[in-house]
Amino acid sequence: MAPSSLLHELRNQSPLIHCITNIVVANFQANGLLALGASPIMADSIEEAAEVSALSSSTLLNIGTLNANTVESMIAAGGSANTYGRPVVLDPVGAGATAFRKRTVTRLLDELDIALIRGNAGEIAAIAGVEWTAKGVDAGNGSANIAAAAMDVANRHRCLVAITGETDIVTDGDKLIRVSGGHPIMTHITGMGCLLSAVTAAFLAVNVHTPIDAVAYSLAFYKKAGEVAAEHAAGPGDFAVHFLNALGGIDDEAIDGGQFFIEEGVKE
Amino acid sequence: MAPSSLLHELRNQSPLIHCITNIVVANFQANGLLALGASPIMADSIEEAAEVSALSSSTLLNIGTLNANTVESMIAAGGSANTYGRPVVLDPVGAGATAFRKRTVTRLLDELDIALIRGNAGEIAAIAGVEWTAKGVDAGNGSANIAAAAMDVANRHRCLVAITGETDIVTDGDKLIRVSGGHPIMTHITGMGCLLSAVTAAFLAVNVHTPIDAVAYSLAFYKKAGEVAAEHAAGPGDFAVHFLNALGGIDDEAIDGGQFFIEEGVKE
Amino acid sequence: MAPSSLLHELRNQSPLIHCITNIVVANFQANGLLALGASPIMADSIEEAAEVSALSSSTLLNIGTLNANTVESMIAAGGSANTYGRPVVLDPVGAGATAFRKRTVTRLLDELDIALIRGNAGEIAAIAGVEWTAKGVDAGNGSANIAAAAMDVANRHRCLVAITGETDIVTDGDKLIRVSGGHPIMTHITGMGCLLSAVTAAFLAVNVHTPIDAVAYSLAFYKKAGEVAAEHAAGPGDFAVHFLNALGGIDDEAIDGGQFFIEEGVKE
Repeated sequence: MAPSSLLHELRNQSPLIHCITNIVVANFQANGLLALGASPIMADSIEEAAEVSALSSSTLLNIGTLNANTVESMIAAGGSANTYGRPVVLDPVGAGATAFRKRTVTRLLDELDIALIRGNAGEIAAIAGVEWTAKGVDAGNGSANIAAAAMDVANRHRCLVAITGETDIVTDGDKLIRVSGGHPIMTHITGMGCLLSAVTAAFLAVNVHTPIDAVAYSLAFYKKAGEVAAEHAAGPGDFAVHFLNALGGIDDEAIDGGQFFIEEGVKE
Repeated sequence: MAPSSLLHELRNQSPLIHCITNIVVANFQANGLLALGASPIMADSIEEAAEVSALSSSTLLNIGTLNANTVESMIAAGGSANTYGRPVVLDPVGAGATAFRKRTVTRLLDELDIALIRGNAGEIAAIAGVEWTAKGVDAGNGSANIAAAAMDVANRHRCLVAITGETDIVTDGDKLIRVSGGHPIMTHITGMGCLLSAVTAAFLAVNVHTPIDAVAYSLAFYKKAGEVAAEHAAGPGDFAVHFLNALGGIDDEAIDGGQFFIEEGVKE
Repeated sequence: MAPSSLLHELRNQSPLIHCITNIVVANFQANGLLALGASPIMADSIEEAAEVSALSSSTLLNIGTLNANTVESMIAAGGSANTYGRPVVLDPVGAGATAFRKRTVTRLLDELDIALIRGNAGEIAAIAGVEWTAKGVDAGNGSANIAAAAMDVANRHRCLVAITGETDIVTDGDKLIRVSGGHPIMTHITGMGCLLSAVTAAFLAVNVHTPIDAVAYSLAFYKKAGEVAAEHAAGPGDFAVHFLNALGGIDDEAIDGGQFFIEEGVKE
């Protein structure tokens, strides 16, 4: 896991990442991808969404400020990425908050071949159908076994599922990797989860490792960038600034093998 | 006024604030609300706007980059907030600039029960129908008695009206509170007024004081955050960064009782 | 060229610049224009686009996150600016990336009187129809004589054409000015080209010099601001912050006459 070549390869390839995303985080995602060494392109109109995904190395679908038009663009873009064999990452922002988000997530999962769902505990709980009290687009609280919920969603939809929070997990439904690190201030900047989904899409675009290892690496990398930025930050305002610097400034050596805890074939 | 419990209560409750807002300031508003201690959610599609307002502690309607679809979402979201007794704040960005903005503001004020209109002098003058020379979305200049215009609008629409600028005022049509402080650089960062409207929506969501006192407090708090940020800033770029830090970093003690000047029942 | 009065005049007039732009860069453009001393207004709805352009000193059309609705708004806004004799700047973001962008650029150039097209080499090559390998919205690489392509586009569409990159060029189809300076980190921040287009629109709004000289000046000014910001920046995150400071902080004296290289009537 986390072999040193993945980040170097990403920076060499500078993969084009198509983001159909929300108006709140579009700028932060684009800057984060550029800082990381990838190339962002945002194109959410039905006139070109499929064509842009065909050009791109991976496609991110983020439902943060969804409307009826962008749902169709997501279906078209995801279908195009599927046709060309490029990974599609789904960020189900506030998945349980409204009926519209619930049925859109269901439709995207039914009609597309999703490589990875990356969400917080509340969002994955909503997809799994387990009890959880989310607040708007925030993670919220619950008593469900969230790792079991992630494995269930991964098995049902034959995809990777990553739940990010204090400790991140990623699972393919069988193997489960926990990733530690990060900093509490990361929850006080808007779009930190959204940008992480874009970052995982960039790492998945680099075909060097198995997808689950690429995702685990990206989670560890992101947490490390958060730690580096937190050292320099006085508050959420300059944390975001230092975080963009860290995405471009840190290297493989920063990733700590001790961040990873692997469980195989252990149904929880 | 400005009792120390209001900010603490906001940070304890972390109210969910639904913002139907413009593409220019959405990120800054979301980060500002998070820094303050509130939870932002942006959902401007007709498919879910009413449902999100029903979940939220208050709703902000900002007409900065309006289109025909978002007007309907604003009506639906505001109506839902009204049904559940949650405050609705209207930010009439560039209210007098175009016929479309004028008739949208008229419609929102006619069909919804607005708790607070927060704008600059040019915007409130446009609603009051008094003479003023605004430039685009900027405040502009005029000779009208702007406090009288605010009181007139407050009486006509049975709401609070806040006009922010060098000295802020807030009125319920009878009582009028002037709030001093702030820093001139605040006019050189986009979305400072828009974020202020979101901040007042957050303070109004915390039912501790009378609404007019909650708004006056939020104006004073915001001006103080501006002063703190200006001390550290070399220009508009890092002012915005320090301002987000200040929204999270300052506490009640920073608010100065001497910022408030109260006039009751004095028609100007 | 670059007489000291142009920047002072811009800051005195504070021209209103109407930007129909994309969701990724809207905030950065608005803050950049404010920092520079201009007044931004973003209004991309068909209900008001023409009216806002009639109020504004210049209009920017940026196709970065185009959809069918905003194309009509661009036609309406550009037509209104043409009627009132105000300059229209076209930023053909990713012009060659999709069929939709290609045909939109063709339509805008056919139906409107464009004062300036500002793009990277890949975008201008796509308009010129010369060979170039662009990647998404990035400049890409090619062997074409890009200065000749710019002159060809300028002659065909009777407008100024600026291609920005390591060395910028601007041409009216006859005279060609090269502008040196800047810093490589400028390619790692999203919206640097988009904001530059908005900045040229602001300088073109100030009727002091010939348009080509005003554009050449704005390119030199922007490169100088990049150099100043790069001196203070540790990475792309704080570069963007320092860059906004520099747009407001530097003065004419910072512009170096040695940045300009003028060629007249030399077809390349």
